[in-house]
Amino acid sequence: MARPITFLSDYGYADEFAGVCRAVIARIAPEVQVIDITHGLPRHAVRQGAIVLANAVPFAPAGIHLAIVDPGVGTERRPVAVRVAEDERLLVGPDNGVLALATERLGGAVEAVDLSASPFRLEPVTSTFHGRELFSPVAARLAAGAAPGEAGEAIDPASLTALELPRPRLYEDRVVAHVVYVDGFGNTALNLGHNDLAATFLRLGHRAVVDTGRTRITVPFGRAFGDVGPGQGILYEDSSRSLALAVNRDSAAEMLGLKPDDEVVLTPA
Amino acid sequence: MARPITFLSDYGYADEFAGVCRAVIARIAPEVQVIDITHGLPRHAVRQGAIVLANAVPFAPAGIHLAIVDPGVGTERRPVAVRVAEDERLLVGPDNGVLALATERLGGAVEAVDLSASPFRLEPVTSTFHGRELFSPVAARLAAGAAPGEAGEAIDPASLTALELPRPRLYEDRVVAHVVYVDGFGNTALNLGHNDLAATFLRLGHRAVVDTGRTRITVPFGRAFGDVGPGQGILYEDSSRSLALAVNRDSAAEMLGLKPDDEVVLTPA
Amino acid sequence: MARPITFLSDYGYADEFAGVCRAVIARIAPEVQVIDITHGLPRHAVRQGAIVLANAVPFAPAGIHLAIVDPGVGTERRPVAVRVAEDERLLVGPDNGVLALATERLGGAVEAVDLSASPFRLEPVTSTFHGRELFSPVAARLAAGAAPGEAGEAIDPASLTALELPRPRLYEDRVVAHVVYVDGFGNTALNLGHNDLAATFLRLGHRAVVDTGRTRITVPFGRAFGDVGPGQGILYEDSSRSLALAVNRDSAAEMLGLKPDDEVVLTPA
Repeated sequence: MARPITFLSDYGYADEFAGVCRAVIARIAPEVQVIDITHGLPRHAVRQGAIVLANAVPFAPAGIHLAIVDPGVGTERRPVAVRVAEDERLLVGPDNGVLALATERLGGAVEAVDLSASPFRLEPVTSTFHGRELFSPVAARLAAGAAPGEAGEAIDPASLTALELPRPRLYEDRVVAHVVYVDGFGNTALNLGHNDLAATFLRLGHRAVVDTGRTRITVPFGRAFGDVGPGQGILYEDSSRSLALAVNRDSAAEMLGLKPDDEVVLTPA
Repeated sequence: MARPITFLSDYGYADEFAGVCRAVIARIAPEVQVIDITHGLPRHAVRQGAIVLANAVPFAPAGIHLAIVDPGVGTERRPVAVRVAEDERLLVGPDNGVLALATERLGGAVEAVDLSASPFRLEPVTSTFHGRELFSPVAARLAAGAAPGEAGEAIDPASLTALELPRPRLYEDRVVAHVVYVDGFGNTALNLGHNDLAATFLRLGHRAVVDTGRTRITVPFGRAFGDVGPGQGILYEDSSRSLALAVNRDSAAEMLGLKPDDEVVLTPA
Repeated sequence: MARPITFLSDYGYADEFAGVCRAVIARIAPEVQVIDITHGLPRHAVRQGAIVLANAVPFAPAGIHLAIVDPGVGTERRPVAVRVAEDERLLVGPDNGVLALATERLGGAVEAVDLSASPFRLEPVTSTFHGRELFSPVAARLAAGAAPGEAGEAIDPASLTALELPRPRLYEDRVVAHVVYVDGFGNTALNLGHNDLAATFLRLGHRAVVDTGRTRITVPFGRAFGDVGPGQGILYEDSSRSLALAVNRDSAAEMLGLKPDDEVVLTPA
């Protein structure tokens, strides 16, 4: 009966925050498997958390997806649990957009509850650690078989916070894209998804000039980092099927000074 | 029959030390669940380890609490297992104070054994990695059901190392407190626990001047980080129920140059 | 029937890469235990990964040992599974040397398969994340009981990539050794294993001069870090039974500017 919990947060590894959440879950539902996705997200990086979660869930077993990136903890943002269309999966976290892309990826929300006064919460509920007192116990109880309706008060799924991402612009002779996120290796994902790739290639050919506003480099399109020499740049479809910019055995983000939301202009070389 | 093991250390994440301990436990007691609390404690931070452990255990399932912060590994400090009053829980680690606060929190030690010549140890015992050869195999065997008396030689629980913490001083017109520890976000916990808060508020009112000796800032008392603007300081009761100083979306410790044991003087604003 | 998987990589903790691999395994084989050895290896450190893996496997339960340090992902290097003599253990990873030392430690390879076109792979196979699409699903299926021959195409075990390590030179009056690796505490392991120690001691006596070419320090041989004062150097047999250089409560590597492959000359003090 018990379903697994995947767990993602920006709690970091220096502190016990993620560990205490795991402890809370083990205490309530010892039979439930917890799969740590990562706790190394940049602090308060709601959008990066949303993207990482959306990229991870298709590879995870159907269950509870717990995601805590919560700069507004203790303020009026709602803690929620969301049932999505696919596999009866449940997402648990703050309603600040961190669940939005995974919800969409899993067929959309079909049920949502506000957990603010959840009967599953641990008292006292502090203003700074809802992971421990609210999200983890709720995730544990849902994983053990409770229904979302038992975890909180029903709210309109349409009222859940959406996430606005910058949109690329594809012109005849150039493509204007934005940095979506930078991974720990400095590989830099752009907001050009799988469906934009054909159109992008058509405009740019086999090599492109990447202009960051401060720097311009010319890089080939390739498949693997090793397709170019060490220290050389490459454009490739990354493992989340987005166009990304990497530098073989080095950090593209650092070399080019790129960070999320930065605009880059791609033109044919 | 098997009970879970919570595991906390300063082994860090760069190396395999914590992983090898997990491997040792899985080899001896494959049915035992290991719950990582954190391995990111600052190296050799015995006192911070003690505080984190004491804050974590009340949220963890009853079982074995393994805690390794061990600057004196291989010297004369004793490796111990301690049975506490509450839930027959067992603490395993070096007898250097890292277990002291959790022991107290869990009702005090009722039985203790010296593990130096434990029959559960893995030979050869090195002088640098007792986590692998001593603490993990003992924790695994205890989790699988062995009695403490089988793990080592009985010692007087009263002989266990205590931990001296600085004490705050509450005067009529000011409160002199000390930094107990700084978390990975720079939030700075003071040695003013839940029971000191009423007296502290009485002296200070709704806003306090925090004087570090080098810097003075005026901050309000609040509940959530978001009660103040980004970059603004706040005094609040943290999730371990201590008074703490934070800066919304920034690091209080870095902004004020605070580290453990530093004295801060709080006066009414 | 299911056997555990130990998992080591250079994926780091900032990203979801290791977590997604864990998710893939849990989806395919929910009953399989995954034991994280570490994911904090320096990026692309094939040799350090090989050493850490070889040091860890003797302490791990017999099962599947998944090791992903893969700078050549997506190029012509082969993904492989290797069955070794000892306990029918299986090693899974890229054939770039990362498996070589553990293979040797576990009695040598008795069967090997190329996983490039494994029927267990997840489609589409990207050029950058074989951990997700190839290594993890194969490890999961092998852990759940599949035979290596079902996972890929048989190759000659003798064709597996070996790992060349620098060799020490023991002269009458000095020992020329090399840094093998540096752990997260700055402790610096040399390529003088347990079998070289007697000969090394014979040449050097109880104290040695360590000459890095840039710095010379005189240090005693000892057993525990605490055998010398804080900030003092010590030569000792480390937990993997190699001669290592440490500085009590500090980083030997940093103080002496040492990194892997650096030569050090040891002479009697």
